[in-house]
Amino acid sequence: MKEITIHSPATVANLVCGFDVLGLCLEEPYDIMNLSLLDKRQVIIKTTGDYPLPADPALNTAGAPLLEMISALDMDAGFEVTISKQIKPGSGIGSSAASAAGAVVGANELLGNVFSKEDLVRFAMFGEKVASGVKHADNIAPCIYGGITLIRSIFPLDIIQIPTPSLFVTVVHPQIEIRTSDAREILRKEVLLKDAIRQWGNIAGLVAGLMKNDYDLIGRSLEDVIIEPIRSILIPGFHEIKRQCKEAGAIGGGISGSGPSVFMLSSNEATAISVELVMRSIYDRIGLHYHTYVTTINKTGVKCIV
Amino acid sequence: MKEITIHSPATVANLVCGFDVLGLCLEEPYDIMNLSLLDKRQVIIKTTGDYPLPADPALNTAGAPLLEMISALDMDAGFEVTISKQIKPGSGIGSSAASAAGAVVGANELLGNVFSKEDLVRFAMFGEKVASGVKHADNIAPCIYGGITLIRSIFPLDIIQIPTPSLFVTVVHPQIEIRTSDAREILRKEVLLKDAIRQWGNIAGLVAGLMKNDYDLIGRSLEDVIIEPIRSILIPGFHEIKRQCKEAGAIGGGISGSGPSVFMLSSNEATAISVELVMRSIYDRIGLHYHTYVTTINKTGVKCIV
Repeated sequence: MKEITIHSPATVANLVCGFDVLGLCLEEPYDIMNLSLLDKRQVIIKTTGDYPLPADPALNTAGAPLLEMISALDMDAGFEVTISKQIKPGSGIGSSAASAAGAVVGANELLGNVFSKEDLVRFAMFGEKVASGVKHADNIAPCIYGGITLIRSIFPLDIIQIPTPSLFVTVVHPQIEIRTSDAREILRKEVLLKDAIRQWGNIAGLVAGLMKNDYDLIGRSLEDVIIEPIRSILIPGFHEIKRQCKEAGAIGGGISGSGPSVFMLSSNEATAISVELVMRSIYDRIGLHYHTYVTTINKTGVKCIV
Repeated sequence: MKEITIHSPATVANLVCGFDVLGLCLEEPYDIMNLSLLDKRQVIIKTTGDYPLPADPALNTAGAPLLEMISALDMDAGFEVTISKQIKPGSGIGSSAASAAGAVVGANELLGNVFSKEDLVRFAMFGEKVASGVKHADNIAPCIYGGITLIRSIFPLDIIQIPTPSLFVTVVHPQIEIRTSDAREILRKEVLLKDAIRQWGNIAGLVAGLMKNDYDLIGRSLEDVIIEPIRSILIPGFHEIKRQCKEAGAIGGGISGSGPSVFMLSSNEATAISVELVMRSIYDRIGLHYHTYVTTINKTGVKCIV
C-alpha cells in the first residue's frame, strides 16, 4: 500500500500590518501526518495524541479538503489519514491550516502530484471553512508554499511569494482561549481613511524591507494601527511584551493570527532567545500558563518525509 | 556669480492603490529653472513663459522652500531663481512639486551639497504647503529621488526607493480644472475595512511586482477600490479611457495625483503610443481640449545641467 509521512508546520497569519493578506511559515512546531492511498472514494480519519479531533471526515479540517480533492479526480481513490496533532487547536498559529494543508500535500504526493500548489490551496480552504466558517488562505498559503506569502486576492486566488531574509521567530502561546469568530466580531466594519493609508504605507514598507533585506525598514513597518489596538485587549500583557521584546532587540511583531499567540521577529538566534526570556518572565509574573517556541522561517512549507 | 540650470520633472502621485504614499517620476515634461547664488539672505523669483506665478517668494512654491533653506544656513546666502514653467499648474502631474524640488536641489548644488536628499524633501514640502495648504511629499520625493518612491511616513519622514523595471508612461491631461482641495473634500473620512484590506493587498502586490519585474502582477495590483470610484466622477471619459487603454495593451493606470490627468503604464513604447491614440480619440470625440505625453520613468529625478 502506498503511504507517506508528512510534517505540516505552524504558520503566523495576519502579519501585523498585513491583516488578512500576509502569512509566514514556521519551522516549528509541526503536525505529523501519515497518509495511505485507498482504491475507493473514501476518507478515513484517525488521530493519535492529546487533542481530540472529529472522526467524521466532513467535519474534520483534514478530511473536508480530501473529500473535495477526491470529487475532483476522474478515478477511484481515497485516503486514510492518521493525524498526530502537535499544534494545539485555538493557539493562533494555524493548527487547522496545518491539518488541511498537510492532508492535501500528502495526498497529492501519493497521487503523483497531479494538482498544482494553487489547486491544493483551493482544496485546503475547505478545511478552514470547517474550522471557522470562512474560507481563507492566509495560513494555508504559507503552509503549502513556505516562507512569507501574500494573498492579494482569494476570488480569484492570487498568491505571491515574498522573498525574505533570514529571520528568527519567537512565539508565546498564553493558555487562554480566543475564538476566531469572537476576534473577528470585535473589529469595526469601517476604519478611518487616514489609518488605512498609514496601514498600506506600512505593508508597502514591509514588503520592500523583506525584499531588500532591510531589517530596519522591516522593523519600522511592523506597525498595525487598525486591528492590533482592538484585538490586543484580549491578550493579557500584550503591550508590555511588545515593548520589552523590542527593548531586548526584537525587530518587531504582534498578534499571531487572531491570537492569543504573540510572535516577535529577530535578526539572530541570540536575540530570539532573549526575547523568549522576556515573554516567559512576563507571563510568569502574570501567572498565566504558556508555551514558547524559538524557531526560524520555514522556506519550503509542508515536507514529505517518506 | 555661481549659477546653475536644472530640469525639474513632472511626477505622478497617488499611484492607484498607493494613495498618499506612492509616487513616480516622469522623464517629461519638466520645468527649466536657473538659479544664482547671492551673498545675502534673500530670495528673488522671476518667471518666464505662459503661466503667471507669484513673485513674492513666501507665496511662491519655489520661494517658500528656499526661505526655509536659508534660515537653516549658518551663513549669509540667498538665491535668484528664474522659472520657465513647462508643467501646467493644476494638471495633476506635480507642477508645484517640480518648482519646489527643483529650487532646493539647484540651491543645494550651488551650496556644495551641504543638505541630504531627506533635508531637501523637508524644505520642499513648504512649497506644497503654499500650493495646497498641506505638507505632503508624494510628488516631492519621486521628483528628488527619481523612480518610484514610497513615503511610508511623513512625521517622521521615511522615504523608500522602490526598484522598478523599465516602464513607459502615457499621460493625458484633459483641459478641465479640478482643485486639489475639492478632490480631497469629496473623499469619505471612513472606509470599509474589507475595502482597505483589498487596497493593502494590492499595494503589497504592486511593490512585489515592481521589485520582481513581474508585469502581470503589477497589472493585477493596479486596482484602487477606495479613491478612484469617487474621484473618477470628476474626470470625463475616465472609465472608457481605462478600459480601452487596457484593451490596447496597457498594464494599468489611473488618476494622476488628484487629477484631471490620467496615466497608463506600458511595458514597451509601441504600446504606450497606441495608448496615446486611444486617449486622443476619446477626448476628440468628447470634444475636450487635452494634452498628451508619452514618456518613461525618470530614474534620477531633478537634473543639474550646467
